[in-house]
Amino acid sequence: MTDGMINYREKAYALLKTDADKIVKLIQVQMDNLTMPQCPLYEEVLDTQMFGLSREIDFAIRLGLVDEKDGKALLDTLERELSMLHEASTKKRVR
Amino acid sequence: MTDGMINYREKAYALLKTDADKIVKLIQVQMDNLTMPQCPLYEEVLDTQMFGLSREIDFAIRLGLVDEKDGKALLDTLERELSMLHEASTKKRVR
Repeated sequence: MTDGMINYREKAYALLKTDADKIVKLIQVQMDNLTMPQCPLYEEVLDTQMFGLSREIDFAIRLGLVDEKDGKALLDTLERELSMLHEASTKKRVR
Repeated sequence: MTDGMINYREKAYALLKTDADKIVKLIQVQMDNLTMPQCPLYEEVLDTQMFGLSREIDFAIRLGLVDEKDGKALLDTLERELSMLHEASTKKRVR
């Protein structure tokens, strides 16, 4: 493997991680300020962002820059984080 | 530039072109068989696919694998093709 290839692999994964973190922050802001988790707009924004990220991950996998299991793990981690955010937000509202 | 880097650039562009062609084919099939161009479902499918492709292109640009002008040109060409398809389909219906 050449240096160039290793750099692209690292950069691809770092970009995907950045985009996943952006989704967490976006949803965090939405939950804190804008809409209820039950709001259809919230679901739509989340679906759109998850779809966009999954297309990026799929593209990186097809390019051979990210391993399939790493791409799947990244999405799984993001889904767990979002589900924890959702739960925390629901609890806050019940209090 | 190493061989590895050149290969990733070529592969990235080829994948994006493949995905753009897939959208053209999908829309072609939709126009021939399923729904009118005025149908909201058609618009939604097209918007979703265009959004997915633009995220892939943006990701490739950020990775440094595709030049910004080439990515833009790919989307512009696709939009022209879709608009020609749309026009042809409308004319057929008027006859």
